[in-house]
Amino acid sequence: MASNHPENLAVRVIGAPEGLPELKDFEVTVEPMPVPGEGEVLFRGIYMSLDPAMRRKMPYPVLAPGPLGATAKIGDLMIAGQVPPGRGYSGGMVGEVVESRHPDFKPGDLIHGGCYWQTYQVLHGRHLDKLPKGEAPLIAELGVLGQPGFVAYAGMELIGQVKPGETLVVSAAGGAIGMLAGQMGKIAGAKVVGVASGEKVDYVVRELGFDACIDRHKEPIGEALDRLCPEGIDVYFDNVGGEVQRAAFDRLRDFGRLVVCGMAGEYNAAESDHGPPLRPVLRKQLKIQGYVIYSYYDMYPEFRRRVLGWLKEGKVKYREQIVDGMANAPQGLIDLLSGANKGKMIVKLGPEPGEA
Amino acid sequence: MASNHPENLAVRVIGAPEGLPELKDFEVTVEPMPVPGEGEVLFRGIYMSLDPAMRRKMPYPVLAPGPLGATAKIGDLMIAGQVPPGRGYSGGMVGEVVESRHPDFKPGDLIHGGCYWQTYQVLHGRHLDKLPKGEAPLIAELGVLGQPGFVAYAGMELIGQVKPGETLVVSAAGGAIGMLAGQMGKIAGAKVVGVASGEKVDYVVRELGFDACIDRHKEPIGEALDRLCPEGIDVYFDNVGGEVQRAAFDRLRDFGRLVVCGMAGEYNAAESDHGPPLRPVLRKQLKIQGYVIYSYYDMYPEFRRRVLGWLKEGKVKYREQIVDGMANAPQGLIDLLSGANKGKMIVKLGPEPGEA
Repeated sequence: MASNHPENLAVRVIGAPEGLPELKDFEVTVEPMPVPGEGEVLFRGIYMSLDPAMRRKMPYPVLAPGPLGATAKIGDLMIAGQVPPGRGYSGGMVGEVVESRHPDFKPGDLIHGGCYWQTYQVLHGRHLDKLPKGEAPLIAELGVLGQPGFVAYAGMELIGQVKPGETLVVSAAGGAIGMLAGQMGKIAGAKVVGVASGEKVDYVVRELGFDACIDRHKEPIGEALDRLCPEGIDVYFDNVGGEVQRAAFDRLRDFGRLVVCGMAGEYNAAESDHGPPLRPVLRKQLKIQGYVIYSYYDMYPEFRRRVLGWLKEGKVKYREQIVDGMANAPQGLIDLLSGANKGKMIVKLGPEPGEA
Repeated sequence: MASNHPENLAVRVIGAPEGLPELKDFEVTVEPMPVPGEGEVLFRGIYMSLDPAMRRKMPYPVLAPGPLGATAKIGDLMIAGQVPPGRGYSGGMVGEVVESRHPDFKPGDLIHGGCYWQTYQVLHGRHLDKLPKGEAPLIAELGVLGQPGFVAYAGMELIGQVKPGETLVVSAAGGAIGMLAGQMGKIAGAKVVGVASGEKVDYVVRELGFDACIDRHKEPIGEALDRLCPEGIDVYFDNVGGEVQRAAFDRLRDFGRLVVCGMAGEYNAAESDHGPPLRPVLRKQLKIQGYVIYSYYDMYPEFRRRVLGWLKEGKVKYREQIVDGMANAPQGLIDLLSGANKGKMIVKLGPEPGEA
């Protein structure tokens, strides 16, 4: 795939799966090279993010505003299962400008935005953010410096607010969000217990410095939490919902916080009509709060400055699992939704500038 | 009952009722006049508060620290149902010092504290707060300026944070807490809808300026909320739990807040194992938070200053229902728990200083 003979691959969703999607639910097509109109930018995708929220069927666009402040129109980009017929799938992407008819962009600029699953595409400049060059590896812009990192940061800063000596429990601890949430807990001086599965259990302790990690397929979650958090939990950063959420809720201490960040474990199921009881919320003075990152983009500059600092000091680590090429994106998403990923799942669409 | 021939009446809890208490669950006794030891204060009760939380069986002392900062030992004063055998019942009281062996108090001083149900009693000075004279009617120190008012204020300031144009729903709207919570909503420029029963429904609209009030015995709560809050609810200030709580939760708008202040409607029932679902908490970015007032006593001076200002400006009204004498306190509590009260329930134990 040399950039002088580009092939423009796109992925569309053609099925409407009940549970885990399968390859037959996607279609890979070759599209003509798009031509930018007035105010628009043609760019080549380099990395594309895969996120559990892509499976979610709720009709709201988590990807709408770019993390650097560009505002896509709500409804322009929709999440899987809500993708209108004939429209492509969408996700976060970084890429390189090929041709620009927008004054803020020129060829060679690096961009970030919520984009369709298509290697070459055109979007209006107002839907794209220009990326600073050289601050961090380009791929990190979709992970620890991108939406997952920002989601973790905002939830911990706004709601979790973990203090030294407190106990933080993080579900989906080996995922792109949980990874940073847990490391932020360590930076804050808390005891951090992850909940994960597979090889990620070992990884978050050995590489990321979590104090412990529960393998949710090997031990009943309640027993494991009792064993590892005998004095209870101060902050539970929830990315899965369901049984893990309830077990953690039941063990919250006075003034405990439940950060409702995501409920990936429930996205394939019918919505439950009930949750944890509120009498303990009164008695133990708990806080349960949900948030969606597009409400907090004014925090992005602070987030970026602090995480770049932590990266420089070696206080935060991250890892990606790279899927090769747009045609493999559907399988990558299926792997991610099965929990088989090792770190942030990213599709590499083409070479970085200067890369062979 | 002249103060030179005082009779010292006390009430003890002798029954352990399952539901609503009855008169036979209480015993009224005549006690000898207590004598203060070193550091202690003998005082005569003038007004005594009756509160729904007195029925609660949870073993924590909501009355422990006095609102002006005195710190009773946790466990010294317990709530009904948890009163140790042979110990008196307890509640908030204002009174007049008769004899003092504590340097901060002298005869004639007015005091406020969490006290036993006994007309004359002795407590250590550190468990009592000295009341300023002449700032407000003495009886208001147990209502709008006392714990109920402070509970309303703290919940609205810390959690509710209602903004102009928002919709606030307050349950137990005619009670001592709901009354101020709703009026604070009006001061903040919100639309305020109460939920109450009996003659209180009319009172909170006519006298307190609520925009509307639902009679929870006359219309299904969900239909009434749909009718009066067609665009949903921004803040629900909950004092009852149960069905009203769920109906209000289901109608919370994006960024809605559920202030978990009390669950009086559930205190007679076994504790439910579930509450509202958390998927809407994520989707609508809701906050559910419980609080217990003794965690926030550092806010008391601010509360007192602001409420005194509102009273002076005529922006806040309140009313009490007065029960005559300690011997009638049990019936007063039963009436309160049945919802038959009209405003803050207060037992008058004896004359105010200077009163005939």
